[in-house]
Amino acid sequence: VNEFELIDAIVTTLGPATTGPLVRVGPGDDAAVVRVPTGMELISSIDALVGDVHFPAAAGPALIGYRAIMVSASDLAAMGAEQGFALVALNLPGDDPIWVRELTCGMRRALEQLGIALVGGNIARGPLAISVSVHGFVPAGQALLRSGARPGDRIYVTGTLGAAAAALARGGLAECRDEADLDALSRRYFMPDARLPEGLALRDRASAAIDVSDGLLQDLGHILKASGVGADLASASVPRMPGVSLAQALAGGDDYELCFTLAGPPPALPAGVTWVGEIVATPGLRVDGRPVEAAGYRHFF
Amino acid sequence: VNEFELIDAIVTTLGPATTGPLVRVGPGDDAAVVRVPTGMELISSIDALVGDVHFPAAAGPALIGYRAIMVSASDLAAMGAEQGFALVALNLPGDDPIWVRELTCGMRRALEQLGIALVGGNIARGPLAISVSVHGFVPAGQALLRSGARPGDRIYVTGTLGAAAAALARGGLAECRDEADLDALSRRYFMPDARLPEGLALRDRASAAIDVSDGLLQDLGHILKASGVGADLASASVPRMPGVSLAQALAGGDDYELCFTLAGPPPALPAGVTWVGEIVATPGLRVDGRPVEAAGYRHFF
Repeated sequence: VNEFELIDAIVTTLGPATTGPLVRVGPGDDAAVVRVPTGMELISSIDALVGDVHFPAAAGPALIGYRAIMVSASDLAAMGAEQGFALVALNLPGDDPIWVRELTCGMRRALEQLGIALVGGNIARGPLAISVSVHGFVPAGQALLRSGARPGDRIYVTGTLGAAAAALARGGLAECRDEADLDALSRRYFMPDARLPEGLALRDRASAAIDVSDGLLQDLGHILKASGVGADLASASVPRMPGVSLAQALAGGDDYELCFTLAGPPPALPAGVTWVGEIVATPGLRVDGRPVEAAGYRHFF
Repeated sequence: VNEFELIDAIVTTLGPATTGPLVRVGPGDDAAVVRVPTGMELISSIDALVGDVHFPAAAGPALIGYRAIMVSASDLAAMGAEQGFALVALNLPGDDPIWVRELTCGMRRALEQLGIALVGGNIARGPLAISVSVHGFVPAGQALLRSGARPGDRIYVTGTLGAAAAALARGGLAECRDEADLDALSRRYFMPDARLPEGLALRDRASAAIDVSDGLLQDLGHILKASGVGADLASASVPRMPGVSLAQALAGGDDYELCFTLAGPPPALPAGVTWVGEIVATPGLRVDGRPVEAAGYRHFF
C-alpha cells in the first residue's frame, strides 16, 4: 500500500471520529478547518511517544493507539479544557496495514470516549513514533495553570497513583495484545483515563493543576516552582492500589491522574479525589516532614 | 543536561519567538493558551520530518530547524491562512545541547520571518524526528480548499519548481553546515519560503490551492481528485531554475511553492506567479497532450 491508500484506510477506520459540530474540514486537505466557540480560548499541546522508549512496540497496536490519545489528552484535563480536536503524526517503520488498522481502532475508541475529533495527520516512514497534538477550549482567562498555588491550599490527586509504574516494574507489558490481556495494573498502564470531566469541574475552583505523567513528586514540584511555594505531603494518604509500593505511588510516572490545589476546605469533592498534603510558604517539598528534591526523586529512593 | 534544562535552554534561545499578541500562555505549563481572533476559524496541520528520511541528519542543525518550520507552515499558506502558532515535538537520540541550540536558532529565524509563535513542545529520547503542528486563522468559511477547481480555471504556480529535487539528485546536502554553504539549488532545499503572503492574497480569488511538497503532478492530482476535474499542463511553461530538469520540475517534491487555480483571466497576478495550464472537464492529467497518471508519476518518468 502507498501513503495515500494507508491514509484513506485510516480515515475510513476512524469513521465519525474525524468529524464533530466544530469541524468544518477534516482530514484530506492541506490542513483542517475548525470553528472555535465564541468566548473560548484555545488550549494546545503536543506529545510524542517513541516505540520502545514510551511504550513497548511489540504490544498490541490497539492498546498503543488508545494510550497515545489518552496520554496526550491528559494535558487538556490539566488545563480544565473542554475537548476539541487532535492531529496525529505517525512515523512507521513499515507499511503493515493490519497493524495500522488496529492502532487506529484503539485511537478511535479513546477519541470517541473523550469526544475528541481527529481532524488531520501525517504518515512518514521512520522508526516507530506517534506524535499527537491535542486542542481544547476554555472560557477566556479560565485555564487552570500551574502557577496559582498559595500557602494554605490543600493538595489533592484524582484516582490512585503508581499502578502504571508497578506494571512496568513487574514486566510483561510487551506481551499484552488487547484489553482481555490486561489485569488491574497493566490496565492502568495501557488504558489511562484522561481526566477531562474532573478538569472541567475544577475550572472555577482549583488554584493550580497538573497531570501526573512523571510522578507525583516531580509534577507537584512543577506546581511549587511555578507558584513559588513549598509543600508537605503525608505519605500514608497517597492513594494506591494493592501491589503498588509507596515509592511507585510517589515517583512513578504514566498515571495521568490530576494533581491540583484548592484554597480552603472544599465544599464537596468529586468521588475518587484524595487529599494528600498542603501548600506552605517554606520552599521545598517534604514527605512526612523529610525534605525531598522534587526534580531529583530518582536519587532519593 | 536533563529534559527540563534542555527545555529551559530552548525557550531562552527562542526568546520573543514564544510570544505574540494572541499568546496568553506560552511554553511552561501543561499546554499553551491562545486567543483566536473574533470571526476567525482555525487552520491546523501536523507534519513530521524524520532524520535521514526527510532531511540529512548530518546537515547543519540550523538548516534543519529552519526547514522544519517552513515545510510545516507551507500548509497554512495553501489554506490562505494568517500565521498563528506552532507546537514542536523533538525526538532526539542524545542530549547535545549545542546541536539543539543551533536547531532552535534555525527554527527561531523561520518563526520570526513568518510571524509564528512557538507556544509549546515536547522533548523525547528517540531516533531523530521533528513533528511540527502549525495553526493559523482564516475568516469563517474562507479557507482555500483543494475541491473548488472548475473546468476553464487556469492553473498557476508560485516561484520555480524542481530546484530542491535537483539539489537532492546532485548530492552533498549532508555537508551543508549553514547558510554560507548553500548555492542556488541547495538553498531551495534547506530554505524554502512558506508562501503565506501569496496564500493570503489568493484567499478571495483562487478556486483551489495546494502546496507542492510531493511534486507538481502529484499535488495537482490531489486538486483534480478533490474537485472531480482534469487538467492540461504545458511543460514549456513550468518555471524552473538553471540546472533543473523538466522531470524534476514536474515530479520533484520539497519545493513548497503553491499550485492554485483561478476562474477567468486574473486581474493582476502577484510577481513570480506563472500560468502553467488549464482545468478541463475531461478526467486525468495531461502534459503537452500526453496522459500521465497523477499519483503514479514515479512510473512515468
